[in-house]
Amino acid sequence: MPRYALLIAYRGEGFCGWQRQPGLVSVQGVLEEAAARLNGGVAPTVTAAGRTDSGVHAAGQVAEVTIAAALPPERLRAALDFHTRPHALSVRGAAVAPEGWSPRFSARMRHYRYRILNRAARPALEDGQAWHVPQALDAGAMHAAAQQLLGKHDFSAFRAASCQAAHALRTLDRLDVAREGEEVVIHASARSFLHHQVRNLVGTLHAVGRGVQDEGWPRRVLDGRDRRAAGQTAPPEGLCFMAVEYDEALPWAP
Amino acid sequence: MPRYALLIAYRGEGFCGWQRQPGLVSVQGVLEEAAARLNGGVAPTVTAAGRTDSGVHAAGQVAEVTIAAALPPERLRAALDFHTRPHALSVRGAAVAPEGWSPRFSARMRHYRYRILNRAARPALEDGQAWHVPQALDAGAMHAAAQQLLGKHDFSAFRAASCQAAHALRTLDRLDVAREGEEVVIHASARSFLHHQVRNLVGTLHAVGRGVQDEGWPRRVLDGRDRRAAGQTAPPEGLCFMAVEYDEALPWAP
Repeated sequence: MPRYALLIAYRGEGFCGWQRQPGLVSVQGVLEEAAARLNGGVAPTVTAAGRTDSGVHAAGQVAEVTIAAALPPERLRAALDFHTRPHALSVRGAAVAPEGWSPRFSARMRHYRYRILNRAARPALEDGQAWHVPQALDAGAMHAAAQQLLGKHDFSAFRAASCQAAHALRTLDRLDVAREGEEVVIHASARSFLHHQVRNLVGTLHAVGRGVQDEGWPRRVLDGRDRRAAGQTAPPEGLCFMAVEYDEALPWAP
Repeated sequence: MPRYALLIAYRGEGFCGWQRQPGLVSVQGVLEEAAARLNGGVAPTVTAAGRTDSGVHAAGQVAEVTIAAALPPERLRAALDFHTRPHALSVRGAAVAPEGWSPRFSARMRHYRYRILNRAARPALEDGQAWHVPQALDAGAMHAAAQQLLGKHDFSAFRAASCQAAHALRTLDRLDVAREGEEVVIHASARSFLHHQVRNLVGTLHAVGRGVQDEGWPRRVLDGRDRRAAGQTAPPEGLCFMAVEYDEALPWAP
């Protein structure tokens, strides 16, 4: 049966997260119900590169689905984009899945962005898509602290209690913090992340930005491997799953 | 009595527009009710630089309000930002209004932005903040056509029937069209605009972008001064009132 890759964007507020949960609206559930219409009424399983939490957005989530009928990717894309209405989700692309490719296990690099609205006034146009921090943040100090976390480490200190990964060893390739007008924007890239890792890193850098902790503190937290020593978990609304990279070419049909 | 200038942002969807209307939620009404709490329960009149339509957003609307009590601008800003909750509106700044200054009549330049999401897939993260045009648009052709509309002209062809201006003579200083990834973004600047002028200009350029009309057509429409000859009125959700310029200094307190 033909297997397809999907490129997906969604707003996090309308979903309980990626994963299907009984009685709740999930991204996976909405996609599977839409795919059922192209699969003789039977909902196929849709798996994703990253199982985002409730409230977390995606601009470039990648998923796979196998359906009984062979369809041109552009028709599959259009049909899924249509049948997932009126949810705040769009199917941006579809491609025939390469042999042996997996959206999750073949991922070479995952890119996340975290937006902090750093001004006194509450969000309006940014509502639901940024963490509102009214107190002044020193983005330069946050960036300097972040650079000390790059590389291959045991990230136990930044791992959620619910994390199901076999171990906490991860390689953090990018953790940039930059001010963009009224916002402080964080870009994080790694082959894979632990559950809540980006949000825990952001919450920890936030304490440095506020001046509550010094620039060396996040590295000491990392080395201590104790989750209780790290900062708060930053709220989900600031986080967006931007893109996934693969060795395989995925020629997205629009 | 002390008079203040206010810098305001809002999402258009939650409002019937700027102007107070019985039984509807307006930006003006929400601000006036919030200001009443600082004015002995009496709602003062709030006037704005631009009376935006229903669905039109603002990032930098400017307004004025007179209240009985003299308050430091930073306290006024914080109080109005708080009391306008939970509406998708934020009071970004407040300043003591200069003598003789009017948010509407002193405006030297108004800046608008119009976002078109130009891709097959429907909006997700951009939902409610861009016009979705699935067919390919030639942004270069739209920009070339737009440049022929710059300068001082009778803009009757791009004026809403409901427009209350005394005449249709306006000076269009900027009308830039540029592709930014999946979006086509239009920036329009003028001392003042007619009712629906930006949306009618965008709807007319859209016909050029689609290839339905040639690059010289918008200029011929302008010269014809006949509203019926122009393109459609682009939908409100793509439009955002970005900023207003004044000769007077307005030192916004955050």
